[in-house]
Amino acid sequence: MEKITIIGSGNVATHLSLQLKNCGFEIVQVYSKNIENAKILAEKLNANYTSQMNEINFNSDVYIISVSDSAIEQIVENLNINNKIILHTSGSTSMDVFKNKFDNYGVLYPLQTFSKNRKIEFENIPIFIEANNEKSFEIIEKIANKISTKVYKSDSETRKTLHISAVFANNFTNQMYAIAKNLLDKKNIDFDVLKPLISETTQKIFELSPENAQTGPAVRNDEIIINSHLEMLKNKPKLEKIYKFVSDSIFEFQKNKTNGQF
Amino acid sequence: MEKITIIGSGNVATHLSLQLKNCGFEIVQVYSKNIENAKILAEKLNANYTSQMNEINFNSDVYIISVSDSAIEQIVENLNINNKIILHTSGSTSMDVFKNKFDNYGVLYPLQTFSKNRKIEFENIPIFIEANNEKSFEIIEKIANKISTKVYKSDSETRKTLHISAVFANNFTNQMYAIAKNLLDKKNIDFDVLKPLISETTQKIFELSPENAQTGPAVRNDEIIINSHLEMLKNKPKLEKIYKFVSDSIFEFQKNKTNGQF
Repeated sequence: MEKITIIGSGNVATHLSLQLKNCGFEIVQVYSKNIENAKILAEKLNANYTSQMNEINFNSDVYIISVSDSAIEQIVENLNINNKIILHTSGSTSMDVFKNKFDNYGVLYPLQTFSKNRKIEFENIPIFIEANNEKSFEIIEKIANKISTKVYKSDSETRKTLHISAVFANNFTNQMYAIAKNLLDKKNIDFDVLKPLISETTQKIFELSPENAQTGPAVRNDEIIINSHLEMLKNKPKLEKIYKFVSDSIFEFQKNKTNGQF
Repeated sequence: MEKITIIGSGNVATHLSLQLKNCGFEIVQVYSKNIENAKILAEKLNANYTSQMNEINFNSDVYIISVSDSAIEQIVENLNINNKIILHTSGSTSMDVFKNKFDNYGVLYPLQTFSKNRKIEFENIPIFIEANNEKSFEIIEKIANKISTKVYKSDSETRKTLHISAVFANNFTNQMYAIAKNLLDKKNIDFDVLKPLISETTQKIFELSPENAQTGPAVRNDEIIINSHLEMLKNKPKLEKIYKFVSDSIFEFQKNKTNGQF
């Protein structure tokens, strides 16, 4: 089994490294620029930890960078691990970020939303992998297959499409719920009244597909309702814009569906 | 048990009238401007049917208007039922739509998304009711309590807030899924890869609340990712706008949360 170093201590780094440990991998070291976070994670993993890039040791076979996308480049610049395998876990950063610096590299992208204090069934998470050579690919594939039952090969371009789709399906959906809750909060209505609706919304999309599951005023372009809702939001110009653009988008998708252009 | 006439034959009319019948109410008649739709629903209900407003008979105690909001007013104008109870099932139409025409009226609003061919556990659907007088309220409440275990009293203003929240939580969420699917379709990626992510999104919001469940590039204002996603959408100006406005909204909500202003 490969020895692994984890660079990062955020949500993805935490869930991924715990799953690696559970699946029998030895986590040698955790690096985080925040020493407290490095320590907290390292203790869960029985690993060493450091907040100094130059203290990252050479004892591992695979180095996994799991930090925010904007921090990857700086890590790459400052990391020296000779010919060991290096990989990142980002949806939208190209594998080429490693190109001029390392010999053996790749990507292991778990398509899921992680929060530190929530348990998750990691073995069901789709994992998308790629590598710059066959030897690296085999090792990354072996690791991926240990931690998940759903492993797919994917180039950087396809992975980016997966990531932007996930942003719509997870982050943006979640924001729609946050806006709904915010509107209810102001009238002292418990968000839980939306629970049956939200459960049904989710169940419907996989059985009917989202276009066919769609209902509501925007589908039928019910201007009376749409305008009365826009009127309710007139003091919240940003929400008003979201309401308008998403309603337009619904109507347009439905129209194209009817025209067979979807 | 009250005798009921159903005016409308769409998704809500269908699910509501079938639940009323299942709970022991006699559905006397179904009206729809489309005679075929009236017939299809009436046959399921063992009821008469008509597509002529002036053929709506006086044999019922309660007349339920369940049509699109833009059609309610016209129905009100043309319906003559003396002092029977009339109600509608709309989220955003005020009860006052009945004011100058009828003596006994109210609203019965089921907060759920209905599609004709999907079964739904009606008894768990939150139902919001109001009426113009005590006698009508008692009857509407009795009917609501027969068909659901979650009945709430709600004035028209509150109901409108519930409805706009439901539009965000259901219709707009669903559109985020439709956009995600559309992006994946174009790369021949199966929408099912998002299933674990979507399930987790929904499970998280009730345990952590949507603001606290939020992750992704917009939360940390990761401009590299956000800009690379906007670049991917540059030939789809409408999606680009949605991406931008919803990302801004996420960032703003998170900022206000941190400032304790949320």
